[in-house]
Amino acid sequence: MNRFVVGGIPYPEALHNPTIDLMARHVSVREYDPDRPVPEGLVPVLFAAAQSAPTSSNLQSWSVIAVTTPERRRALAELVGQEFLGQAPLFLVFCADIFRLLHVVKRRDYPYKSGDVNLLLVATNDAAIACQNAALAAEALGLGCCMIGNVRNRPREISDLLGLPRGVFAAIGLSVGWPARKNDVKPRLPMSVVLHHERYSTEHLEAGIETYDKQMEATDVYRGRRAQVPGVTPPPDLDTAPYGWVEHVARRMAASSQDRKDFGAFLRDKGFAGG
Amino acid sequence: MNRFVVGGIPYPEALHNPTIDLMARHVSVREYDPDRPVPEGLVPVLFAAAQSAPTSSNLQSWSVIAVTTPERRRALAELVGQEFLGQAPLFLVFCADIFRLLHVVKRRDYPYKSGDVNLLLVATNDAAIACQNAALAAEALGLGCCMIGNVRNRPREISDLLGLPRGVFAAIGLSVGWPARKNDVKPRLPMSVVLHHERYSTEHLEAGIETYDKQMEATDVYRGRRAQVPGVTPPPDLDTAPYGWVEHVARRMAASSQDRKDFGAFLRDKGFAGG
Repeated sequence: MNRFVVGGIPYPEALHNPTIDLMARHVSVREYDPDRPVPEGLVPVLFAAAQSAPTSSNLQSWSVIAVTTPERRRALAELVGQEFLGQAPLFLVFCADIFRLLHVVKRRDYPYKSGDVNLLLVATNDAAIACQNAALAAEALGLGCCMIGNVRNRPREISDLLGLPRGVFAAIGLSVGWPARKNDVKPRLPMSVVLHHERYSTEHLEAGIETYDKQMEATDVYRGRRAQVPGVTPPPDLDTAPYGWVEHVARRMAASSQDRKDFGAFLRDKGFAGG
Repeated sequence: MNRFVVGGIPYPEALHNPTIDLMARHVSVREYDPDRPVPEGLVPVLFAAAQSAPTSSNLQSWSVIAVTTPERRRALAELVGQEFLGQAPLFLVFCADIFRLLHVVKRRDYPYKSGDVNLLLVATNDAAIACQNAALAAEALGLGCCMIGNVRNRPREISDLLGLPRGVFAAIGLSVGWPARKNDVKPRLPMSVVLHHERYSTEHLEAGIETYDKQMEATDVYRGRRAQVPGVTPPPDLDTAPYGWVEHVARRMAASSQDRKDFGAFLRDKGFAGG
């Protein structure tokens, strides 16, 4: 029996499997070889992988937009706020899509009430699950990917760029290309904090967060990629010294709750529940 | 070059890969061998697979509850409304979890505003993506799975059963076991309807839905598993004759919008945006 790199979780030999090994090696790739195109015929293969994933009640409430022209990739990367992603030769935008469903519902006379939040979750889950299959399929072929939740950062402009109708919004992006550089596999929270048996437990929460916070501080992974909270000047020592997961989470949560305050109104305009 | 079974999508030989083949063979398994336990050490391996998946900004805003005792599995399956799932020896409940994040945010003084809908999507996406990795890892080992969005059907009772605190709700379930029976791979909508190039297009929508509707009617897959819309008596011929995707979607959408009308209020009680 050996162990997974992330988390040191037991990996009994009887369960060794190449697909699980592939998952365990996952890293997000943010630097691509801009001169090396993706293989011929890749997009339909990633699409087939995505479409093979489960979908809630077979509603298939997602779509994907493949963006490959350099100027549109760069425009998208700029709207996302991560311009280096424009180097990736392929940018897939997985959308929550109830446009088709509403189109179909109109053909029948059933009493449908729009705007329930469950349908928002159905459609974003469908998009996310499809996206994960596409990402893993790309990684299986040696390519690198980065999932991009920031497609929700400037949702109206991204919607306009992609021509998304009412009932469709960009839920999650995926940049795909040949890695120019790969990070190490990122540590995760201890298993005792995230995996629960029979009932939710907070027994190992404090100790687990403490351990993980120190571990992440030691990797210094947040140097150069620190969330700035609008209107807040961080304590000077925290702007230069390495920091860990606790400071990272606190900043992210504060920044995100301010950045995306228009997102609910945007969703309502698109025909979804908006919070 | 051959083609994927689902959708007849080209699969060039240069891109053949066992992980992609595995994805393409996916079927949801709803009938399990109740007497054959899952392999020793499986839960930590599926957990490692799940935890290796990407997570938005490394927030890791998900948890998973492994339910293995027969009486609790059966109770869960009953609440979900699919009692046959109680035969599966393992029931994983993937939760959207911001409990830990809120706990961590309190340690710092940043101006955090709660209840934004983006955070709801971040956490459910994290849970869904982790769930898909666990499902594929199980399938890689020859096990069968069924993803269960119906864990959101009676959310308060499921929350009580699993002891979920504020900030945590059951987003998606996964039953895991040895298949007693496997369906054929289910056809999906044509690629021309779901995959778009550069911009969203409705050019192939009508023809694609028409083709798919007939294809699904021919499989008669919805016989015996028809959504009943509360308060609606379907036309008699549609209760006995095979029906296709259009009728299925119309019923599902109508039924779901009525079944889950309390879900928004539940989410708000849990500290999430509730639509």
